[in-house]
Amino acid sequence: MPLNTQIQTLGARKIDSPLPYNNLEDDKQVQVFVDKDCSQEIDPQILSLEAAGPRKKLYFNPTQAKCAIVTCGGLCPGINDVIRAIVMEAHHAYHVPSIIGIPYGLEGFIHTFNHNFIELTPSKVSDIHLFGGTILGSSRGPQDAEDIVDTLERCNINILFVIGGDGTMKAAQMISNAIQNRGRKIAVIGIPKTIDNDINFIPQSFGFETAVYKATEAIECAHTEACGVPHGIGLVKLMGRESGFIAAQATLALKEVNFVLIPEAPFTLEGEGGVLQALEQRLLKRGHAVIVTAEGAGQHLLERTSETDASGNVVLGDIAVYLRRAIKNYLNSHNVRHTIKYIDPSYIIRSVPANSSDKVYCGFLGQYAVHAAMAGRTDMVVAKVQGQYVHLPFEIVTRSRRKLNIHSDLWRAVLESTGQGTLKGMLPED
Amino acid sequence: MPLNTQIQTLGARKIDSPLPYNNLEDDKQVQVFVDKDCSQEIDPQILSLEAAGPRKKLYFNPTQAKCAIVTCGGLCPGINDVIRAIVMEAHHAYHVPSIIGIPYGLEGFIHTFNHNFIELTPSKVSDIHLFGGTILGSSRGPQDAEDIVDTLERCNINILFVIGGDGTMKAAQMISNAIQNRGRKIAVIGIPKTIDNDINFIPQSFGFETAVYKATEAIECAHTEACGVPHGIGLVKLMGRESGFIAAQATLALKEVNFVLIPEAPFTLEGEGGVLQALEQRLLKRGHAVIVTAEGAGQHLLERTSETDASGNVVLGDIAVYLRRAIKNYLNSHNVRHTIKYIDPSYIIRSVPANSSDKVYCGFLGQYAVHAAMAGRTDMVVAKVQGQYVHLPFEIVTRSRRKLNIHSDLWRAVLESTGQGTLKGMLPED
Amino acid sequence: MPLNTQIQTLGARKIDSPLPYNNLEDDKQVQVFVDKDCSQEIDPQILSLEAAGPRKKLYFNPTQAKCAIVTCGGLCPGINDVIRAIVMEAHHAYHVPSIIGIPYGLEGFIHTFNHNFIELTPSKVSDIHLFGGTILGSSRGPQDAEDIVDTLERCNINILFVIGGDGTMKAAQMISNAIQNRGRKIAVIGIPKTIDNDINFIPQSFGFETAVYKATEAIECAHTEACGVPHGIGLVKLMGRESGFIAAQATLALKEVNFVLIPEAPFTLEGEGGVLQALEQRLLKRGHAVIVTAEGAGQHLLERTSETDASGNVVLGDIAVYLRRAIKNYLNSHNVRHTIKYIDPSYIIRSVPANSSDKVYCGFLGQYAVHAAMAGRTDMVVAKVQGQYVHLPFEIVTRSRRKLNIHSDLWRAVLESTGQGTLKGMLPED
Amino acid sequence: MPLNTQIQTLGARKIDSPLPYNNLEDDKQVQVFVDKDCSQEIDPQILSLEAAGPRKKLYFNPTQAKCAIVTCGGLCPGINDVIRAIVMEAHHAYHVPSIIGIPYGLEGFIHTFNHNFIELTPSKVSDIHLFGGTILGSSRGPQDAEDIVDTLERCNINILFVIGGDGTMKAAQMISNAIQNRGRKIAVIGIPKTIDNDINFIPQSFGFETAVYKATEAIECAHTEACGVPHGIGLVKLMGRESGFIAAQATLALKEVNFVLIPEAPFTLEGEGGVLQALEQRLLKRGHAVIVTAEGAGQHLLERTSETDASGNVVLGDIAVYLRRAIKNYLNSHNVRHTIKYIDPSYIIRSVPANSSDKVYCGFLGQYAVHAAMAGRTDMVVAKVQGQYVHLPFEIVTRSRRKLNIHSDLWRAVLESTGQGTLKGMLPED
Repeated sequence: MPLNTQIQTLGARKIDSPLPYNNLEDDKQVQVFVDKDCSQEIDPQILSLEAAGPRKKLYFNPTQAKCAIVTCGGLCPGINDVIRAIVMEAHHAYHVPSIIGIPYGLEGFIHTFNHNFIELTPSKVSDIHLFGGTILGSSRGPQDAEDIVDTLERCNINILFVIGGDGTMKAAQMISNAIQNRGRKIAVIGIPKTIDNDINFIPQSFGFETAVYKATEAIECAHTEACGVPHGIGLVKLMGRESGFIAAQATLALKEVNFVLIPEAPFTLEGEGGVLQALEQRLLKRGHAVIVTAEGAGQHLLERTSETDASGNVVLGDIAVYLRRAIKNYLNSHNVRHTIKYIDPSYIIRSVPANSSDKVYCGFLGQYAVHAAMAGRTDMVVAKVQGQYVHLPFEIVTRSRRKLNIHSDLWRAVLESTGQGTLKGMLPED
Repeated sequence: MPLNTQIQTLGARKIDSPLPYNNLEDDKQVQVFVDKDCSQEIDPQILSLEAAGPRKKLYFNPTQAKCAIVTCGGLCPGINDVIRAIVMEAHHAYHVPSIIGIPYGLEGFIHTFNHNFIELTPSKVSDIHLFGGTILGSSRGPQDAEDIVDTLERCNINILFVIGGDGTMKAAQMISNAIQNRGRKIAVIGIPKTIDNDINFIPQSFGFETAVYKATEAIECAHTEACGVPHGIGLVKLMGRESGFIAAQATLALKEVNFVLIPEAPFTLEGEGGVLQALEQRLLKRGHAVIVTAEGAGQHLLERTSETDASGNVVLGDIAVYLRRAIKNYLNSHNVRHTIKYIDPSYIIRSVPANSSDKVYCGFLGQYAVHAAMAGRTDMVVAKVQGQYVHLPFEIVTRSRRKLNIHSDLWRAVLESTGQGTLKGMLPED
Repeated sequence: MPLNTQIQTLGARKIDSPLPYNNLEDDKQVQVFVDKDCSQEIDPQILSLEAAGPRKKLYFNPTQAKCAIVTCGGLCPGINDVIRAIVMEAHHAYHVPSIIGIPYGLEGFIHTFNHNFIELTPSKVSDIHLFGGTILGSSRGPQDAEDIVDTLERCNINILFVIGGDGTMKAAQMISNAIQNRGRKIAVIGIPKTIDNDINFIPQSFGFETAVYKATEAIECAHTEACGVPHGIGLVKLMGRESGFIAAQATLALKEVNFVLIPEAPFTLEGEGGVLQALEQRLLKRGHAVIVTAEGAGQHLLERTSETDASGNVVLGDIAVYLRRAIKNYLNSHNVRHTIKYIDPSYIIRSVPANSSDKVYCGFLGQYAVHAAMAGRTDMVVAKVQGQYVHLPFEIVTRSRRKLNIHSDLWRAVLESTGQGTLKGMLPED
Repeated sequence: MPLNTQIQTLGARKIDSPLPYNNLEDDKQVQVFVDKDCSQEIDPQILSLEAAGPRKKLYFNPTQAKCAIVTCGGLCPGINDVIRAIVMEAHHAYHVPSIIGIPYGLEGFIHTFNHNFIELTPSKVSDIHLFGGTILGSSRGPQDAEDIVDTLERCNINILFVIGGDGTMKAAQMISNAIQNRGRKIAVIGIPKTIDNDINFIPQSFGFETAVYKATEAIECAHTEACGVPHGIGLVKLMGRESGFIAAQATLALKEVNFVLIPEAPFTLEGEGGVLQALEQRLLKRGHAVIVTAEGAGQHLLERTSETDASGNVVLGDIAVYLRRAIKNYLNSHNVRHTIKYIDPSYIIRSVPANSSDKVYCGFLGQYAVHAAMAGRTDMVVAKVQGQYVHLPFEIVTRSRRKLNIHSDLWRAVLESTGQGTLKGMLPED
């Protein structure tokens, strides 16, 4: 699959940057290797990407720029850190006079929702990184791109920063297209956000590490509960609609997980090589077991629903409920006394403040987003790929969802840690 | 209600204690005031209780004593701390040669369950306080007292420490009675455990403070989620079958809760003074709301089930499910757009390690339990009442469940913190 | 020592309280037992004290009241919680129209320091409890009471809340006296603060529990370091100028401490029964050791300095430096190879936010301080004594410093936990 | 500087691996870019390195292998995780029958020290990752390589895993050389450990992230203290003998630091562009300031000592003491009243357990170390470079210390965060 990594620009860059040093050549490129934990086949394996960073020449005169920030979709640790970093960088480094916050996601642009814009100043944002969530509020679902561009124009906004997930990046791309169709010069810069770590091409998205840590707390509790009763089973449901990254990474962080079920590995429940038989053996041998399931795992076992949520995602069947019933029936029919303790930490994982590592990461993302915008880039996101900050076209990150490659060393390590490599569907057929 | 606070003893105390100092007079009493947060009427308001502590003369020759420890019922932070303290005190202070752990609660005594006893030594327990849960395992439900005493006799156990809740203390009392009926000299000492803080006569049970802290983490997340969407409602279900202490205390610790529903305050949902109308007003005025409900709250609104669990407790209707539906219907019918984020932290609250304050508390409980047993006390629990460690007969702590007194300063402070004092059922009629 | 527990009032209480219920009789008393961990002899052992709480009749018309809050001395977890609670209670419960914060302690009252008052509103204080320290700033040392009263009068302040330590409470008493000498009607209410837990008559001051927790973290690190090298010695210095409460309590919470040195127990270093010989034996037997010393311990071994700090306290000799040198010399002369790892967590312990338990405590203190002031009490502090909130005259809490009673069960438990009961000076002569 | 990245092997690999899949080609290479935060010039910028990972063919017959693990130098979060991962991988994946722990670093090999080896089994190590430090103990300084190889031979050890810093890797190289000189077939595999993140060629060493987090806690306290007094200055000393990575990264994580002093940026104190004048201006403008200094910063200002410690490192002058005095003198002479609060968290930063992210990292390092050894690699370390696990010859990682490149984006971000870019010595071009 050839990738077009060309970054769009609004026009010639002629304004001297106020930044004193470390400015990059305008077309500075870096080379990166394609992420191996991801299942997607990308060719070539080494790509040349535009380096993120400040440029000597700017497109916008910063003292005349007006920025807007909008946050969309579900919460994720670090959103406030990104907002803060954008405001601080635009204000202190570029002396941008006005930065406004759009309330409650894309609907904040739409007149009929009747939300008020929020003036973002350094003093307003100076402590927000200590809190989870987003001070701007968020919402799900699309809004009409033309309406949004109307608002951008009416408010004389030159630069729009969009923090959101896959769907939001698609919306941002549509906004960017609408702007170009009108021949306007408004930069649209995305900062991809996902609690599931499923943004295409980005090995680790901000907030993921924090989320994994919180997930391990829940798993630890499940383990403690499982050990506390005869044949105790701790069952934990974690986020991960289509990708099992949180479940897999938390398993590696904690070491107490015996079965981890993810969407990418099509396990079976019944029969030889099925989860139920292996669980029974584990219980009889060790007296307790811990099962972690991503919310999107095992959908092949469930009846497909046709409902969709506000973001347009199909409502998933509840694998945890299904597993509980299946385990109970199986063990009862085999006369194995047991107790299942089910934990669904849900929002606890995504609404906490970022840890210090994610704070550093989010700080860089915000700064690089401002650098990109000032230099006139548009229709792109800032991202960290293998330790390097780069510019990626919207088109690349929205092309498909990132999934865990079950041929990767990551998954191999998970299989070794859990010992579940002998189950059907877990090992790649090679 | 007159209380018999007399402590039973196994016989005359003649053995010199190996403890060098601070030994109490055998019949040392302390006076305590009755707990005001509890709804129960006790008269007189000042009681004389036997002081916990080491005595100069012992009943058992410690070097010939054999102790057993059993842990029953649900998990609670600090159980391992109590186990550790008993073992360390018995071993180091009294040089007791043998302490065994009974696996998986009372069923560990019963031959047919086929569990193996656990030898408890200082090196075995030295780090267990760093983990939640119980290293001995637990189970629910009673076992035949005669069978248990058979095992105690067969194993030459002189002293039995029972860590468990209300039902377990009743079982311990029955064991004690069976021992007396046989004319045996086996001390039975209870250390009351409850995540709900509902043990009669004990203002704050061990682990409660830790549980409250974990509860505040969940509520903080609910608050963050509620703030993150237009008209967001964070709904948190906390433990508390018959008593709202965790919900009330967490509310005071966090300050972000707008409605706290507990079993003791019979709120209404509909109409003037009902929760739904007040919630609507809060949403329209402030844009978000946080509701905390104890699992046993609002049972008057639900259909009564007749199921019981393994401990014989009635299975409660699910108030959170009921509330979600009621809120959704009400707000939809009033055309108030909203989003409900529901968090059920469940086992996360009770399976964590004790915090440092509970560690100190559990350490004292374990030590005092050993002192009491060595001096020949039986049929009693050790407890902290208003900063003083005392002996209480089983009969007192099992007489009824402790409930939150809605005339107390505690509840007044909750009403002030939430502002829900104007709701029906929250304010005492005075 | 007879105690005068009589609380002063500004005058007759005639205004109806806006609080709907739970109001106490004006002269409501509670009985409390004297704290046994404290070394001071108080007679009788049961005292009758005025109960804290709202009254039906007020002295001040709340809608015309003007409050001021000042914070003095060193930091302590929970100060911001107390400030927040005072503001919230005065504003929401009593509708007080104006509350001002005095910046940087008592010097904030003095014109020549040129500090600006801070208007305290609910929105200003709503999140401050999430931060350590004091948003008002603090300073040490006295200021002229007459100057302070001049400022109170000039600004029409009716009620002054003073948060501070022993010295500050004395200063508050002098302010109160100066007010009375002028015949003014200004309430002065103290909320005692001490990181050392050494306020007379108050078994546990706010922030103490949080401080103990942070202290255990440092001790845990010292233990890890000690175990990491041959004959490793972890040495930790904790706060405690005249009282060893933090050191003692942290020892009980952690269980890894082998020697804990406090001001109240006059240990010896040299010879039989000295710390050095016992340390050597511990090292040879177990390979590592952990020593915790309160900063005020062992002053009998050091040369007395005559310097004083800004608060007028004598500058202590550095016991940790002295111990390190003494240990090194002793072990070297005995050819015991060793490594000492010294940790001085210092400000890390006192500048963190309050934990959830201290948050609840501080919330009550702030509320009760407002209730007392509104009812016209003055020259007093609010305090929790054995689970009950009461009013205490300044005179009682400033009479002397609270010290750890080495005849108490607390100290006995410490000796048992460490095994240091055989050292000279540790055991009371009985 | 050309780099020889060739990995040594003990001989032909002929044994079939028991690992079922994901085995790499024997000579599998990956390409990595040279780390830009590091000051060292390396050419070319892209290097081809041997990929870490399991191989189809092994050199050792795993069921006849005998492994040893030794940990050297100062503590670092994650050492126990690496030990655990090695033991689990060798035992469960390769069925290695015997793994021994060498006590107290390299001296554990030397007969005269009289330490006992520790048998390492899965049950022995299963919980050790929950604790900081190293269960094996450690020591500093070299031991005779021939003596060590004598012990390896005498004990029939085939594989030696060495966890330690720069000096330890040099020692491991010497052991490897001595083995080769004797013509023995013993694999020596290093896992580089450094709290300062100063191992050449490795962008982020294990434990660094955890250390940064703990450092931010201390800085947060310094900030709180600084805000709590008029013209308060919080001064924090962090680890970093020759490299300022912890100081720089913690600054980016916390945002409250105004001055960060590192060895790589030769700041001046006096005069225009000096720290003292800028500090004065900051105090007068904002009322407080936070200074973070790496322990090795500003050595150009101090008299050089000639002492060395047990590891042979020069004992540094104490920059914090020097700064305190200089600040005090300067501000006093300018009549700027101030208070300095100094925090030296020291061992608190390095002796805590690894966070969940470092746990995952350490798990991979341990696994890859075992894979490398089994395939007969020697004289090398396993390392993560830009998200890829690789083999590096000892020679590369010991060639020099990694230092912070002050031309990097990392340092630019630090200058922007602190605003100290105008100070002399901070910006590269001056």
